[in-house]
Amino acid sequence: MYIMETDKKNGGIENGGIEHGGDPASAEARFGRPEFGWLDLSTGINPRAYPVPPIPASAYARLPRHGEEDVLVAAARKAYGVPDDAAVVCAAGAQALIRVIPSLFARNEVTILGPTYGEHARAWNAAGHRVVDVGSICSQAVHPAPCGVVVHPNNPDGHTQSIEGLLAFADELFDRGGALVVDEAFVDVTPQLSVTPHVGRDGLIVLRSFGKFFGLAGVRLGFAVTSSAVAETLRAKLGPWAVSGPAIWAGTCALRDQDWIATTRTHLKSDAARLDALLQDAGLDVSGGTDLFRLVESAHAGAVYEKLARRGVLVRAFTDNARRLRFGLPGCERDWTRLEAALAL
Amino acid sequence: MYIMETDKKNGGIENGGIEHGGDPASAEARFGRPEFGWLDLSTGINPRAYPVPPIPASAYARLPRHGEEDVLVAAARKAYGVPDDAAVVCAAGAQALIRVIPSLFARNEVTILGPTYGEHARAWNAAGHRVVDVGSICSQAVHPAPCGVVVHPNNPDGHTQSIEGLLAFADELFDRGGALVVDEAFVDVTPQLSVTPHVGRDGLIVLRSFGKFFGLAGVRLGFAVTSSAVAETLRAKLGPWAVSGPAIWAGTCALRDQDWIATTRTHLKSDAARLDALLQDAGLDVSGGTDLFRLVESAHAGAVYEKLARRGVLVRAFTDNARRLRFGLPGCERDWTRLEAALAL
Repeated sequence: MYIMETDKKNGGIENGGIEHGGDPASAEARFGRPEFGWLDLSTGINPRAYPVPPIPASAYARLPRHGEEDVLVAAARKAYGVPDDAAVVCAAGAQALIRVIPSLFARNEVTILGPTYGEHARAWNAAGHRVVDVGSICSQAVHPAPCGVVVHPNNPDGHTQSIEGLLAFADELFDRGGALVVDEAFVDVTPQLSVTPHVGRDGLIVLRSFGKFFGLAGVRLGFAVTSSAVAETLRAKLGPWAVSGPAIWAGTCALRDQDWIATTRTHLKSDAARLDALLQDAGLDVSGGTDLFRLVESAHAGAVYEKLARRGVLVRAFTDNARRLRFGLPGCERDWTRLEAALAL
Repeated sequence: MYIMETDKKNGGIENGGIEHGGDPASAEARFGRPEFGWLDLSTGINPRAYPVPPIPASAYARLPRHGEEDVLVAAARKAYGVPDDAAVVCAAGAQALIRVIPSLFARNEVTILGPTYGEHARAWNAAGHRVVDVGSICSQAVHPAPCGVVVHPNNPDGHTQSIEGLLAFADELFDRGGALVVDEAFVDVTPQLSVTPHVGRDGLIVLRSFGKFFGLAGVRLGFAVTSSAVAETLRAKLGPWAVSGPAIWAGTCALRDQDWIATTRTHLKSDAARLDALLQDAGLDVSGGTDLFRLVESAHAGAVYEKLARRGVLVRAFTDNARRLRFGLPGCERDWTRLEAALAL
């Protein structure tokens, strides 16, 4: 069996046994509890969350209704620029969609452009597909596998592809009986790069994560943008009431708030630049990333990780590449000061 | 292909094209919008919801942490009486677990004791199993299928089984390489009937729904109680962050509130008795149910459904049995009066 074989290769396992960012408890087992608590920079989630208006009690109490999900989908369509002939499926986080998508296809091979977010390989493996890790979109395109996954921009290095190239690749995979999954979890900060406005063909499934840009990862909300036929199958696989009432409420409010979205893009851009300057001052080279996180490559990455952790600052390390560290953005001046001090010590 | 073949037989499709209770919009297309809005009695959800304390912003903003899910699971263990050697898996609604469970087993046959909640048959069908509808636990036990599903108490008729019988059946199915799924979505009102305190063996998976008894169906939270081995596979299938921050918060608060739980059981019991009396006064025979809903059998069920709907009261009808109607509980005096008036007219 091939299941889980490529698991570790895909960078899913972090230093110290932490499988993902965002769980300081695991780091605490190794480094103890910091005097002033953790400054958690181990995720790429916007630290300045969208201010969700108070949730009406009915959002908890009764089952979400079709009409409410329709309103959420309409807001997502507008915010993401989904064309009229494409369909939108909502789920309890893009993660829920990542798990279900491999079951849409007969067991075969899938190429995953990596190293990247490890959950794609896990999900395809678990569904019985053979995962082929590829290092470039070219080697991915020439491989005969019917399905492919591209995280776009890529996590953690921020690599992007041309829209034209992704569409051509999707058409090719559709001809092979498969599809291209484009995970645009971090594209909100660079909407001009998004392939979402070009969806509608059968061989393309684009994933959009709600929680990262809006800083609301806890609500669990994500979308698949694809053709009507694929959307129908996906919905049937997910079953009814896939999204909670609070998620519908928060998602509808946030996706409609174009002012907040525009202002946040500007803030994140300047924060990412500020983080670059701070890291460079500390002698760390920023090799990539998005406006939601920055990737550092350094021969001393392990020592930097430990130094920061002992000072209560948690960043993301990778077992598949010990030279890499990923930094999320601090959210307030106190946190910026704290990161600067921890890097300087 | 057998897929969806038994779909309609399992009572999943309601009058007027409504697939489930809880979505008056579909009834509205047929009957128009009632002058005073809908009184929705089409679900078995407690109309008097648990009063969730204000959700901390962190529950939305960051990813749920393992430690938080552990606290929720500890609360569920205590509330449900889960033995120490059994494991608890949480998901975004019992529905999410119903979808995943069939993928734990090699494609084969599954017996479903019915008529019952239609999503079990849908999920097993979708995963490629052949669904065999059985009308009694005896015919279910003698059928050679390795997997079985029992909704306990059953929805909509309230039928229950002996704990001893369910455990013996689970052991038998485990010997056949399968398992027994006991869906205890409505058992909270009669905890003495629950098989949950007896879980721990490998052939038994018990599902517990959070939203029905606590009146918080919108938060999407459910549990599987099973052996450690099955739990591990289930968790891997669900992937990380299966439950939202708001669901963890609401679930932990509610499941710990033993006073509310005890008082609510008493209230629901007296409300169910009041509903029985009201239905009997209207000439309708109550043939079963639980303290969260009552089942009526009547030659005039179709006419009663229409009469109530035209007066803005929505109950649950069943395409597989036109003589049946299911009534949820009204939540306040105004709603009781409204139901009484609608039945009398």
